[in-house]
Amino acid sequence: MTLQDDKILEIINKFKNQELPEEAALAQIKSLQYTDLGFAKLDNNRAERQGFPEVIYCAGKTPEQCAEIMYALSLNNANVLATRADKNVYEAIKAKVQDVRYHEEARVVVLERKPLPKDEERVITIVTAGTSDIPVAAEAAVTAEIMGNKVNCVYDVGVAGIHRLFAQLEVIRAANVLIVVAGMEGALASVVGGLVNKPVVAVPTSVGYGANFGGLSALLGMLNSCSAGVAVVNIDNGFGAGRLASIINHMR
Amino acid sequence: MTLQDDKILEIINKFKNQELPEEAALAQIKSLQYTDLGFAKLDNNRAERQGFPEVIYCAGKTPEQCAEIMYALSLNNANVLATRADKNVYEAIKAKVQDVRYHEEARVVVLERKPLPKDEERVITIVTAGTSDIPVAAEAAVTAEIMGNKVNCVYDVGVAGIHRLFAQLEVIRAANVLIVVAGMEGALASVVGGLVNKPVVAVPTSVGYGANFGGLSALLGMLNSCSAGVAVVNIDNGFGAGRLASIINHMR
Amino acid sequence: MTLQDDKILEIINKFKNQELPEEAALAQIKSLQYTDLGFAKLDNNRAERQGFPEVIYCAGKTPEQCAEIMYALSLNNANVLATRADKNVYEAIKAKVQDVRYHEEARVVVLERKPLPKDEERVITIVTAGTSDIPVAAEAAVTAEIMGNKVNCVYDVGVAGIHRLFAQLEVIRAANVLIVVAGMEGALASVVGGLVNKPVVAVPTSVGYGANFGGLSALLGMLNSCSAGVAVVNIDNGFGAGRLASIINHMR
Amino acid sequence: MTLQDDKILEIINKFKNQELPEEAALAQIKSLQYTDLGFAKLDNNRAERQGFPEVIYCAGKTPEQCAEIMYALSLNNANVLATRADKNVYEAIKAKVQDVRYHEEARVVVLERKPLPKDEERVITIVTAGTSDIPVAAEAAVTAEIMGNKVNCVYDVGVAGIHRLFAQLEVIRAANVLIVVAGMEGALASVVGGLVNKPVVAVPTSVGYGANFGGLSALLGMLNSCSAGVAVVNIDNGFGAGRLASIINHMR
Amino acid sequence: MTLQDDKILEIINKFKNQELPEEAALAQIKSLQYTDLGFAKLDNNRAERQGFPEVIYCAGKTPEQCAEIMYALSLNNANVLATRADKNVYEAIKAKVQDVRYHEEARVVVLERKPLPKDEERVITIVTAGTSDIPVAAEAAVTAEIMGNKVNCVYDVGVAGIHRLFAQLEVIRAANVLIVVAGMEGALASVVGGLVNKPVVAVPTSVGYGANFGGLSALLGMLNSCSAGVAVVNIDNGFGAGRLASIINHMR
Amino acid sequence: MTLQDDKILEIINKFKNQELPEEAALAQIKSLQYTDLGFAKLDNNRAERQGFPEVIYCAGKTPEQCAEIMYALSLNNANVLATRADKNVYEAIKAKVQDVRYHEEARVVVLERKPLPKDEERVITIVTAGTSDIPVAAEAAVTAEIMGNKVNCVYDVGVAGIHRLFAQLEVIRAANVLIVVAGMEGALASVVGGLVNKPVVAVPTSVGYGANFGGLSALLGMLNSCSAGVAVVNIDNGFGAGRLASIINHMR
Amino acid sequence: MTLQDDKILEIINKFKNQELPEEAALAQIKSLQYTDLGFAKLDNNRAERQGFPEVIYCAGKTPEQCAEIMYALSLNNANVLATRADKNVYEAIKAKVQDVRYHEEARVVVLERKPLPKDEERVITIVTAGTSDIPVAAEAAVTAEIMGNKVNCVYDVGVAGIHRLFAQLEVIRAANVLIVVAGMEGALASVVGGLVNKPVVAVPTSVGYGANFGGLSALLGMLNSCSAGVAVVNIDNGFGAGRLASIINHMR
Amino acid sequence: MTLQDDKILEIINKFKNQELPEEAALAQIKSLQYTDLGFAKLDNNRAERQGFPEVIYCAGKTPEQCAEIMYALSLNNANVLATRADKNVYEAIKAKVQDVRYHEEARVVVLERKPLPKDEERVITIVTAGTSDIPVAAEAAVTAEIMGNKVNCVYDVGVAGIHRLFAQLEVIRAANVLIVVAGMEGALASVVGGLVNKPVVAVPTSVGYGANFGGLSALLGMLNSCSAGVAVVNIDNGFGAGRLASIINHMR
Repeated sequence: MTLQDDKILEIINKFKNQELPEEAALAQIKSLQYTDLGFAKLDNNRAERQGFPEVIYCAGKTPEQCAEIMYALSLNNANVLATRADKNVYEAIKAKVQDVRYHEEARVVVLERKPLPKDEERVITIVTAGTSDIPVAAEAAVTAEIMGNKVNCVYDVGVAGIHRLFAQLEVIRAANVLIVVAGMEGALASVVGGLVNKPVVAVPTSVGYGANFGGLSALLGMLNSCSAGVAVVNIDNGFGAGRLASIINHMR
Repeated sequence: MTLQDDKILEIINKFKNQELPEEAALAQIKSLQYTDLGFAKLDNNRAERQGFPEVIYCAGKTPEQCAEIMYALSLNNANVLATRADKNVYEAIKAKVQDVRYHEEARVVVLERKPLPKDEERVITIVTAGTSDIPVAAEAAVTAEIMGNKVNCVYDVGVAGIHRLFAQLEVIRAANVLIVVAGMEGALASVVGGLVNKPVVAVPTSVGYGANFGGLSALLGMLNSCSAGVAVVNIDNGFGAGRLASIINHMR
Repeated sequence: MTLQDDKILEIINKFKNQELPEEAALAQIKSLQYTDLGFAKLDNNRAERQGFPEVIYCAGKTPEQCAEIMYALSLNNANVLATRADKNVYEAIKAKVQDVRYHEEARVVVLERKPLPKDEERVITIVTAGTSDIPVAAEAAVTAEIMGNKVNCVYDVGVAGIHRLFAQLEVIRAANVLIVVAGMEGALASVVGGLVNKPVVAVPTSVGYGANFGGLSALLGMLNSCSAGVAVVNIDNGFGAGRLASIINHMR
Repeated sequence: MTLQDDKILEIINKFKNQELPEEAALAQIKSLQYTDLGFAKLDNNRAERQGFPEVIYCAGKTPEQCAEIMYALSLNNANVLATRADKNVYEAIKAKVQDVRYHEEARVVVLERKPLPKDEERVITIVTAGTSDIPVAAEAAVTAEIMGNKVNCVYDVGVAGIHRLFAQLEVIRAANVLIVVAGMEGALASVVGGLVNKPVVAVPTSVGYGANFGGLSALLGMLNSCSAGVAVVNIDNGFGAGRLASIINHMR
Repeated sequence: MTLQDDKILEIINKFKNQELPEEAALAQIKSLQYTDLGFAKLDNNRAERQGFPEVIYCAGKTPEQCAEIMYALSLNNANVLATRADKNVYEAIKAKVQDVRYHEEARVVVLERKPLPKDEERVITIVTAGTSDIPVAAEAAVTAEIMGNKVNCVYDVGVAGIHRLFAQLEVIRAANVLIVVAGMEGALASVVGGLVNKPVVAVPTSVGYGANFGGLSALLGMLNSCSAGVAVVNIDNGFGAGRLASIINHMR
Repeated sequence: MTLQDDKILEIINKFKNQELPEEAALAQIKSLQYTDLGFAKLDNNRAERQGFPEVIYCAGKTPEQCAEIMYALSLNNANVLATRADKNVYEAIKAKVQDVRYHEEARVVVLERKPLPKDEERVITIVTAGTSDIPVAAEAAVTAEIMGNKVNCVYDVGVAGIHRLFAQLEVIRAANVLIVVAGMEGALASVVGGLVNKPVVAVPTSVGYGANFGGLSALLGMLNSCSAGVAVVNIDNGFGAGRLASIINHMR
Repeated sequence: MTLQDDKILEIINKFKNQELPEEAALAQIKSLQYTDLGFAKLDNNRAERQGFPEVIYCAGKTPEQCAEIMYALSLNNANVLATRADKNVYEAIKAKVQDVRYHEEARVVVLERKPLPKDEERVITIVTAGTSDIPVAAEAAVTAEIMGNKVNCVYDVGVAGIHRLFAQLEVIRAANVLIVVAGMEGALASVVGGLVNKPVVAVPTSVGYGANFGGLSALLGMLNSCSAGVAVVNIDNGFGAGRLASIINHMR
Repeated sequence: MTLQDDKILEIINKFKNQELPEEAALAQIKSLQYTDLGFAKLDNNRAERQGFPEVIYCAGKTPEQCAEIMYALSLNNANVLATRADKNVYEAIKAKVQDVRYHEEARVVVLERKPLPKDEERVITIVTAGTSDIPVAAEAAVTAEIMGNKVNCVYDVGVAGIHRLFAQLEVIRAANVLIVVAGMEGALASVVGGLVNKPVVAVPTSVGYGANFGGLSALLGMLNSCSAGVAVVNIDNGFGAGRLASIINHMR
């Protein structure tokens, strides 16, 4: 159902023309779909279906599992991303796939053998409320870049000193898509959302203390934004924001 | 312990000088403190202790109880406030104490026989994010006014159209104390807090829908404000904000 | 700062050329920004700034306030939207602005004097999990339509009978932007998100009972979606979804 | 009351026939029930009452306590299970009961002296959404196996790439009972529940980040499943799912 | 994919044998799946796929929508169930499908033209903690009965007077599947779970006051049950419990 | 097991002495325990086991069910209590058992044919923070009185005017057991707990607004009391507090 | 106000008789009340007021602070308790007050120079649901013992194997006061509460996993207990339970 | 808009007089506002706007980032504060700005080259409920002192031994502004609030255990205070309380 239509049509027409027995047709169709590593099933047609291959979410996997998945994906894909990767994971991957690089702040491992072309006119601008939000912003930035987007970062323009934000207004309004990364009360998303006519992807962070309850305050703040045009991803989910911004940024 | 010092000293010195027997001294001291209506104990020295007589919180009381309390307080106090009063409560009070007036929007009954003098130079400015926050702001305004403050209201300057706020900047900066009333994400408190060097009393409201969870989103947003100088009162608690702002505004 | 650049440049250049005194320049700049009704400040340049005039959120406002705001906005704007409007609100508006129409299911009042042109090729597809989610979907549909979008609705394709969804796969994949409206566990957002390479705006609804806690289950489900490319708006916030989808759908 | 009926009848009839004095009858009846280790009371007739001896939940117990309990249970039971056992616990047990084995991934210690017979026709199939859910699935698998069930595992078929799930449809439909293990939004339980006519035991996991709140998102998602035929056990509770699935799988 | 295999095989073989053109094959396959009423898509092969036709969840639907769905389902199915139906819904249905009957306490409308055979030996026993839990139990009972099960009810045996429960022990142990319905702390599920070796489906109810938080206390209590063999459905979800119990009860 | 020991010993000795056949013995033992009304099982030996007959919790029961239960209990008990009874319930009961009386404020129906003797020296003192807490206090008072306790009430001594509390110190310290009833922040429990050396039963109430979240603030406040000697019952649970205080007050 | 009446009367009469100047009277009264260590104010008349000296809660204090407080208290009190004390705290205390002893499982340091007499007839019985609850029970036990109570412990009688509980029924019913310590669903409190006519102090523990949410499940379970006569203290608060049980147990 | 008015007027008048080209005017205006370090934008006119330079919140920043920010701020400001600074942060700062000092208990780094003058008559009094609350109080004290306030601390006067509080009544009533720092149930804020007619800034702390849920109990307690005149800052936010108290204390 979700397979590449051409390949399937080819197979079932072979079957119809009796060039292929029933069982073989079934097996071929299945093999198009994913590689089974036992502990993981790699979604082989995700690049075709969604424009970028499956991304490896490393948390909760052993370094060995991460490395094996990266290796298997690298066989069919020029560019692969692994998120939430600590140093150990990076080293395990590096041992199997030498040409990866590591973004320590973003905790992301990147394989980028054929960089995708970027449209210099359509920029994704990532705005953070504070310095402490930068790691999440970096995850978003690396994600958007490898998916073929020009990215621009504006850090530490939270609403406590709102002139810092207004001084960047030209930059912010020049963006094609915006990602706003903020902890504490997350008010920056509402303020930015009110200033632009472009989509705003809001990322609440777990930055703050006391009654931020692990990012809940920023999450609720952003969901209840009085500015329309703002949508929210999970707490600290820089990857999700970068991915969605990339999809939107490629729209024509 | 919490009695007016002079009266007590007078009593205990009479006791020391044997002008007053032990039991009588005890009784007199106690009678200074409160009037006992059975279902309520009216705090008679609150005006002296805190600058304004006990305020009647009508929710959960019968109209008759509210009226009896108002009547009893009116015997010793020129100015009395009753909050969370619906029409029935107002009418029950009115029947016993004719010279009260009713603020319907604020749901407040006011007895104001000797208006307190107001300092025209020191204004409390109440700012709301939206039109729907006005009833809570009105409760704060009525409270602050009867307690002897000049009050100024700026409605509907939420951050979705932030130029409306900046157009009021002069007014906002002229305030001596600010009350910010906002629902949804409550971001207005942070933005205002970053623009002034005066205390900001933030009142989260239950305005909004969905994941505002009865005002929780605004409450958490305000508690986690990245602007220092902001403190928060209970959800929809216009009275508490007006009371605190009045205390601060009278400081010299 | 957030004003239309041209008009401001004109004003300040007049000031520079001494065709306009200082005070007049200030006043003119301010008047560009909003109309002050006392209880509301209408954001006059929102259409210019964000592509559509300020939308009236009727909850918590009196019918009279809603009607006055609609009337004031109608003076400067051909198309205006009022959401969360019950019958009383509609009738109050209708009395002042005769050519509005009412979408009862969506609880929306629409003034549409000059329909915006629609791109027939770029469709926003709204998908609901169940029949009970239709009112929220309708709010999103009316919103997106008046903002100049072709909208397509696919109702009742929740995952309990997933073949209903797959039978619509062609329709779903033909969408330029998707809005997924679902209550209960909200799983439909993840499933749709995994099938398309277009942005998915997820709207959790308060449909369900027991431990859905007013839409919290669907909200958390959608925020934690394992499919990238999904972002979330507030519970039951059809308007927000329609507005964001419209912004994205107009991107070129 | 909950004792084995035969033994009790024997005892009380001896008492009736005066073959046994009153006190002895009482003591014998009590001794049938449990072994008292002081810090623990081992439920000696659970195997008879519920088909499998008491399982040792090691969390919060010292390694020595775990070992003593395992030893005491091993005297009366051929097969015993200890869950939530880390390496230290395993080693302490191993020192007292040599023939145990350790499932590191599942954190389970197993004593299996007389494997129970398994019905090859009635398979319990355990399905996980991701690789990170495997440890919880493993706990369920070990539990169900030692209780005499054939178990089949299908890993990493989450809904983000739903064709992976459909490719396993034959396997899934061949199951007699299903256990679905998923974190994040837990949508897999609803999708599987809609595809089969067998009972689905859903296990939410704490896998995920941000607003998953330790598994709450998956838990609520599964409880609110729009598919009937799904019931839920505690977060990360692989053992509970395996135990329940085994009970159901043995029904005739 | 989820269609009845035989019919599909017949169609695709016709297609292969050129008895059917490509488009017709596609249309026939789709028509097998569901009836589209616009506001609802009726899952036509659910009876085949899951043993009972789609159940109508009436909450959030208009009485007219409920009636239309019932009528459409009645064309293809002898037995249909509609839950959460108030009097208005019942009357609207009755006007279109005369031979339905109404269970007022359970708020269920039943169409039962061909009662399913019941196995007298395998009883589903429904146990409630209190009298106030009976409506939820009744929903479970009606559901299980129409699905072809013998049902036995034991009401008001909560743990505060645990001898009432033990007096029913024989009845309880005679059950093939148990449904435990309890509010407040939900302890009955744990106690029953410890006494039987049959599956226990636990239904938390919203009965209670204060800190039961709408059924949360019973829900958490049942999820954390120290007795294995217990699984939980949504708060007040008698239907879900009855459905699952029926599935289990038909296992051989 | 939970039966009156004497009656059981009599029965089983008759059985032993062959004055009673096995089945009759079983039946007699069971009949001692409860009366089965179908929808309710009345716990006949609760008075013997716990000192007072089963109390009828009317919420969630029909007026008819309440009346039938009261009637059945009145056959074996002189004094019976029904809580959470609205006017309709009272009237239904009154129609069946004429000599009941109704405490409207406490929403309690009382049958008191043989008042229990009270110890005048050992008083239960009920203290409320405000006037709005009185209905909960009244439920506690009626409960304790019918169970044979002298009760003393001190209303409206919350900590905002703490001298009102200290003026009652003698009364408070004269209590044998204290019940503290408070909403909002519930601080009164801690203050009273620090002043006495008697047990304090704390009842949080749902009085308050905004972030009291239905009594959660008072509940958490009381559970976290820095004063030892305080224990907490459910929100608004005056009955539970009265019952526990009575048990403690009868200790010798 | 809370001072020992005799000493105060003595002082103020000296003052009256001019044997003491005003300032000295004030100073003497104050010195009766507490010792000021700067970082702590030791409540010197708590033993007199509440029957046992102030207890040291060590969490959040440095070992040095704990030691200084213990030393200062030991000057005026024969018996002192310090809870939540880890090894470091114990050693710091031991260095200053040699004759303390350490209960490692309970994490309690005890100074007991003059053991209080115990009433052998009135036993406090502490019941735990599982082995993992023992540390909390031990804290309760040590607390109650040093306060002059005979304590009896019954461990691991949770409701999953309820016959273990019934086998202890005689012991449980012999108690004068009961403390029930349980995690997970906390059902043991309800079951025990239904079996006795003595007060039950329930202590929820954080034992369990998944959706126990740090003890919330047991806490809510116990607060919502369907058995009257149960009151609840804070999660894991063995000390509070022991203290309250001791107060009750000394009632005559 | 938020710039120092004089400097801006100077610049724009130069521009008007053609002493400055357009671009230069823009650049000069912007440079007044903040220093851009890339990862941080230092708010250069905050001292002018709010009376004290930007405070460094060190949590979530690397030690190097903290040091660079301190260095940059020290160029333009005599006094700078860095909060939530652990030892590593302090040492990194010390290496770049030698004349800082470290308050270990408060975890604050202070640069104080020109101490601000203090008004000896207007004291900020900080009151804690317990010894464990002292670190939060210390953060508030250091903050208020460097901002030019006389600070007085009263530790360990929680309501469990309320005479300790009353013994300090004179000190407390002498305060111009009060900060109340309390964990557990936070009752101290209500009691103090009822005794004074000065503003009370309440700081809930995370001190406590069990159902304090990281400070939630104290937070809710303080927000629901029955005493007016109390406002609340975030949990453990000593800095915010000190800052707000300083603003209020400087009012004339």
